Amino acid sequence: MPASSDTEFGRRLTEIADRVTVALDQLIPSAQGPEADLMRAMRHAALANGKRMRPFYVIETGALFDVPERSLLRTAAALECVHTYSLVHDDLPCMDDDDYRRGQPTVHKAFDEATAVLAGDALLTLAFKILASSETHTDPVLRLKLIERLADASGAVGMVGGQMIDMLHQDTPRDINTITRMQRLKTGALISYSVESAGILGGANEGERLALQGFAHDLGLAYQISDDLLDVEGDPALVGKPLRSDESAGKTNFVTLLGVEPARERVKMLAAQARTHLAFFGDRANILLQSVDFVLDRAH
Amino acid sequence: MPASSDTEFGRRLTEIADRVTVALDQLIPSAQGPEADLMRAMRHAALANGKRMRPFYVIETGALFDVPERSLLRTAAALECVHTYSLVHDDLPCMDDDDYRRGQPTVHKAFDEATAVLAGDALLTLAFKILASSETHTDPVLRLKLIERLADASGAVGMVGGQMIDMLHQDTPRDINTITRMQRLKTGALISYSVESAGILGGANEGERLALQGFAHDLGLAYQISDDLLDVEGDPALVGKPLRSDESAGKTNFVTLLGVEPARERVKMLAAQARTHLAFFGDRANILLQSVDFVLDRAH
Repeated sequence: MPASSDTEFGRRLTEIADRVTVALDQLIPSAQGPEADLMRAMRHAALANGKRMRPFYVIETGALFDVPERSLLRTAAALECVHTYSLVHDDLPCMDDDDYRRGQPTVHKAFDEATAVLAGDALLTLAFKILASSETHTDPVLRLKLIERLADASGAVGMVGGQMIDMLHQDTPRDINTITRMQRLKTGALISYSVESAGILGGANEGERLALQGFAHDLGLAYQISDDLLDVEGDPALVGKPLRSDESAGKTNFVTLLGVEPARERVKMLAAQARTHLAFFGDRANILLQSVDFVLDRAH
Repeated sequence: MPASSDTEFGRRLTEIADRVTVALDQLIPSAQGPEADLMRAMRHAALANGKRMRPFYVIETGALFDVPERSLLRTAAALECVHTYSLVHDDLPCMDDDDYRRGQPTVHKAFDEATAVLAGDALLTLAFKILASSETHTDPVLRLKLIERLADASGAVGMVGGQMIDMLHQDTPRDINTITRMQRLKTGALISYSVESAGILGGANEGERLALQGFAHDLGLAYQISDDLLDVEGDPALVGKPLRSDESAGKTNFVTLLGVEPARERVKMLAAQARTHLAFFGDRANILLQSVDFVLDRAH
């Protein structure tokens, strides 16, 4: 279920998505020279119509701390570069072999496999360049912290490690521990980073940091389970890919493992926990609270 | 022709290669968890027996400025992570489709294609993590400069852009301008970074910076042309891959374009220029000078 533009959350999500797309358009090098197809492929992937959930969490969490707009937008754009690169590589024939993404042909279909590998590589590299620039924040130590944590969240002990688990354990039934670790690394780490990076930019104190960490943890897991529920039960037009793609690929996920109803119950419980963490910030966290309702709605 | 261990240059190259391999062994996460194959693949690629020319240039250029050992070694290791990731991705079936590298099966042969894509991604990410750490240097601004320049040298307007040119223009004869741009981006940018990063760590002044830049430019081009000469004329046991691989793949390179003798002449001219730039540093640049002789020897 897409976010309704009638709610404040829906309006903010759309607004942030538009601004991040404009920022990415400015940050990705323009297509020129004999290598121009590389930039075209980067733009094809990054400027497509994504939900931009991670940028949303960077920007709305940053609003809790009155972080300057420009810092949040650049950090959100860097994070979206990493997320986009991971999709481009995940869609490759040797990985998930997907032909469509964000309502358009994947990069290796619109261009070719070599270009998709290289466009992903270049988007990942660009993310670190964006964060290193003094335009992202005046404090060098803070920029380094953003870079170090992004590398942790997206590398071998983060997102890439999660993707590896997903690739390695496709033929054997996966237990709940393996699935949980896979999710925590593959999607959880970057969702946590979206909230954590805003806390870094905002100089969050220890109590605030822990509340944000708890929120991101519960939200990320709820989001993944709701994704698995959509895969089984959603409307393919809204999901953007064929239904039951995990099941037909013989993959175990939270829903195949727990069953539909227990999975829904788990989303509800996690959503309740996520709200509890946000209570720490009072009314200022109103839009973030609405985003939890959005995840809950996806699970129905 | 491998560097002779009888020369001071040869001894230093071997010594540096050993130390960088030890550093990489410590910096790459150990293989554990359900994702352990990812770390195994990273280690397979990064700990293999490479020449470590880029680390050599970081460390020997740093010696001109009395840069602390640890800073040089970590910077060299980060650069070698980037170089290694580029080899892992370049070797993929959708790119150069190579089965052997550094005297052993390539990552996608020893593991599989998905693991090779992911191991490359994780090595690139690790490079930025290494540079961001305070263990690399105490000065945050300097670390950010290292990160920003590495992203430039290795991204869309650097190494990845060069690889894109190599992929795109395989079927049509390439002119000397395209070949030169491809080389400058694909291999020249990281060789330049090896020298530049040491200058950043050493606080090189403008004159020193320009001398290093000129040296790296001429050296990088001479090195690439000598590589193309080896591809046509070398001993396959020493080159580590089948000869005439470019020619049989229908690729234009400096040698197919210029001819063997003019290519040799160009290497000589570039080597002479590279020496001239080093004259700026006097006797302290002795080992770097010897490395120019090594490149000259490769071209014969």
